[in-house]
Amino acid sequence: MIKSKTTLRVRYSETDQMGFVYYGNYPQYLEIGRVDALKSVGISYRSMEESGYGLPVKDLVIRYHNAALYDDELVITTHVINMPTNKITFDYEIHRGEDLIITAQTTLFFVDASKRACRPPVDFREKMKAYFN
Amino acid sequence: MIKSKTTLRVRYSETDQMGFVYYGNYPQYLEIGRVDALKSVGISYRSMEESGYGLPVKDLVIRYHNAALYDDELVITTHVINMPTNKITFDYEIHRGEDLIITAQTTLFFVDASKRACRPPVDFREKMKAYFN
Amino acid sequence: MIKSKTTLRVRYSETDQMGFVYYGNYPQYLEIGRVDALKSVGISYRSMEESGYGLPVKDLVIRYHNAALYDDELVITTHVINMPTNKITFDYEIHRGEDLIITAQTTLFFVDASKRACRPPVDFREKMKAYFN
Amino acid sequence: MIKSKTTLRVRYSETDQMGFVYYGNYPQYLEIGRVDALKSVGISYRSMEESGYGLPVKDLVIRYHNAALYDDELVITTHVINMPTNKITFDYEIHRGEDLIITAQTTLFFVDASKRACRPPVDFREKMKAYFN
Repeated sequence: MIKSKTTLRVRYSETDQMGFVYYGNYPQYLEIGRVDALKSVGISYRSMEESGYGLPVKDLVIRYHNAALYDDELVITTHVINMPTNKITFDYEIHRGEDLIITAQTTLFFVDASKRACRPPVDFREKMKAYFN
Repeated sequence: MIKSKTTLRVRYSETDQMGFVYYGNYPQYLEIGRVDALKSVGISYRSMEESGYGLPVKDLVIRYHNAALYDDELVITTHVINMPTNKITFDYEIHRGEDLIITAQTTLFFVDASKRACRPPVDFREKMKAYFN
Repeated sequence: MIKSKTTLRVRYSETDQMGFVYYGNYPQYLEIGRVDALKSVGISYRSMEESGYGLPVKDLVIRYHNAALYDDELVITTHVINMPTNKITFDYEIHRGEDLIITAQTTLFFVDASKRACRPPVDFREKMKAYFN
Repeated sequence: MIKSKTTLRVRYSETDQMGFVYYGNYPQYLEIGRVDALKSVGISYRSMEESGYGLPVKDLVIRYHNAALYDDELVITTHVINMPTNKITFDYEIHRGEDLIITAQTTLFFVDASKRACRPPVDFREKMKAYFN
């Protein structure tokens, strides 16, 4: 299993007139969480893209538990529970202190330079193996 | 049942470096779809908020089928299948011509001026009733 | 001279907790205005990019006169006053009815497929000439 | 004079299909820079808003020097050169290492709870005075 934590501060631009973080801004936060989860095991998403791979999102689920406010410090906890195949699933929780803000899940799949579904790069698979034995 | 269609054109700002609409921009499109669905039955979300009500999102699910591109014309089809209670569920499909781009569902709930869960305004319930008998 | 008008409706996601359109969302509106100004003279920005050209922004100036609100209908008036060289300057006004919301100016320059500054494509220059004699 | 530095990492959502940070995302970065500049002298923008004040932007100028890329680490340097009156002007530079990405300036003005222009709060003026004698 992989687990990582990322801290971020809510930007003014991310609020809406209800006074909370706009519900559509959380996918950005999730993406920050999963890039950090990959970094924590030595995988750079930027390098992976530069070598021709992509990881588009197939499925997104978010449950909103509490509202986050401007200038709040949020902690994104990201998990990869199962060994990735051609797909990889990330689970997320975002907290402000003890308060649970959202829970979420995304499933992504690998594409090659021609944007077709493909197997993950060898380096990715080898780094992942170390965490799922 | 309520059904409405909304057309929009993809903005440059909505693409990412993969060359597609960023996955996190679709919740904005969904919100445009559901506001139009409410307008189609005579309900103004803006007026509802001005009179003290809010409709935060509780659950969001998106399945990504195909990528949308800059300057694409997209059609959002929004349904309300069940009579709203204190919650309201919207189902969405976004197409570019014949191509299915995403399917999605959101569930929202009513809050009053103090941001507590509440029943929908009377006017909302009466307008809805006409569509669910 | 080139002049075009574009209408758009303010999205909920574009507001911030002050209750107005976030100041940083206007550049998106300007981009919609200038793409429409080019379309009005038969130039597709999308096609231009597909054939290897780009038009990055060099300078942006915005003066904020009045706040725009959620669901407001805004009209972007876009002008090109001078014949484009390797650079092109757009002037903008955004109104809500009679109210002036912002005035703005952007200057962009042409880049080729290797992202180096270059002359505009021949087709662009010919279409422009018709408007600046 | 006030001077502060803020570091941020470019998010995937902030890129566009040209492969660079979208020009319209820099105002968000500037806002992060100026909130940090205020924090550095003991002023919380969040608290100021909670006590009824606002600081809308009147003027924005950005000059784009170089493109920023996904995952770049950017440093925003924010200056307040002149003692604020009812208005406050911030100057900014954003760098990636030695590369200058943009220079910018924003002028903001104080509004009270009814959104009318007003003098800054007493606490703000006192904290500022210490830096402009």
